[in-house]
Amino acid sequence: MKSEKYISPAVIRRLPRYYRYLGDLLAKDITRISSGELSKRMGITASQIRQDLNNFGGFGQQGYGYNVEYLYKEMGKILGLYKSYSVIIIGAGNLGQALANYTNFEKRGFRIEALFDVNPQLIGLNIRGSEVLDMAILEGYLRDHAIDIAVLTIPKTSAVEVANLLVDNGISAIWNFASVDLKFPGHSVVVENVHLSDSLMTLSYQLKELRSETPLEE
Amino acid sequence: MKSEKYISPAVIRRLPRYYRYLGDLLAKDITRISSGELSKRMGITASQIRQDLNNFGGFGQQGYGYNVEYLYKEMGKILGLYKSYSVIIIGAGNLGQALANYTNFEKRGFRIEALFDVNPQLIGLNIRGSEVLDMAILEGYLRDHAIDIAVLTIPKTSAVEVANLLVDNGISAIWNFASVDLKFPGHSVVVENVHLSDSLMTLSYQLKELRSETPLEE
Repeated sequence: MKSEKYISPAVIRRLPRYYRYLGDLLAKDITRISSGELSKRMGITASQIRQDLNNFGGFGQQGYGYNVEYLYKEMGKILGLYKSYSVIIIGAGNLGQALANYTNFEKRGFRIEALFDVNPQLIGLNIRGSEVLDMAILEGYLRDHAIDIAVLTIPKTSAVEVANLLVDNGISAIWNFASVDLKFPGHSVVVENVHLSDSLMTLSYQLKELRSETPLEE
Repeated sequence: MKSEKYISPAVIRRLPRYYRYLGDLLAKDITRISSGELSKRMGITASQIRQDLNNFGGFGQQGYGYNVEYLYKEMGKILGLYKSYSVIIIGAGNLGQALANYTNFEKRGFRIEALFDVNPQLIGLNIRGSEVLDMAILEGYLRDHAIDIAVLTIPKTSAVEVANLLVDNGISAIWNFASVDLKFPGHSVVVENVHLSDSLMTLSYQLKELRSETPLEE
């Protein structure tokens, strides 16, 4: 059932940022904040903030500002947090291990159940309580376990094939670190891409622009 | 000198994606492509593609499509690639090591000169030819070496302090993986953030929405 109205991707992209800033405020025992003050901290206009939050029913009282804890929790619910997600990581190299070692994900409900790799030197390793299993048993594993999210930290050459296998075996959410855009026509799958190379190139573009604006000093 | 016209951040964000798709086409020996075909592959409208590329002078000939190799190379120049950038990584944990091990960055001209960490167990390690140095010598290192880009893979608690030290010592480009937005008022610094937690929360939001649309099967 589609009960909520359409929220634009740009707003959705800002939600985790609100959640992060509100969490920081909470950690500093700040219980109430005006949209003006939040605007200053976040570098978003106050009217943008009001507009964004109005998508979800507002949360603010004119003249009183926002209740930080309430807004934080509601934002968390909107983001689908406070639930438990079972996660597998495909690719147990440095990046896969980095993600498995990141305790913050677990705190937010993302439980790493297992990692998978083809490398015999990695298979059998235990990463903070999660075992590295052989890719060869992935399909059987997916039949026996209810997995919510698969993280792809494998090279782009094998990413598409593995992603299709995941989707064919019931995975409907993929956090993709491979440098390829995944598409699943005819399947209901959500994909969130982290294209590290794209990000680094954006940085080099900006650095090039910065340097063309700033004449070098003697 | 500001010679080029203003390019919107949305266009800039799409550039690495064009570059990636064009590279894939080249690898498949496809030398010419119409905006319609490129549109189909990339999932961007043909008119959007023409509009984006017109920001940089066009590249296409009506009825002939784009010359893939030429467009790829020009796009690379626009992105500031084909130069050599000296890079240091602050934080030699799993993520820092994953980035140091990623050979693709080097191929595009990003040379990892050194990693830095406070952990005595990591200091002295050699990651694919780059040494892990003691954070205590970072300031002196920056005086003696011309570094273009600093990568921050340290926890948010120390990220702001370290970032300020970097900027005070001449760094003008930061690739930031710490879960905090960095600001440097009064300094000319470009920052590109990779907020992994934000990305994961965007995925859980989408998964929540997907599930609310799709009634569970029996």
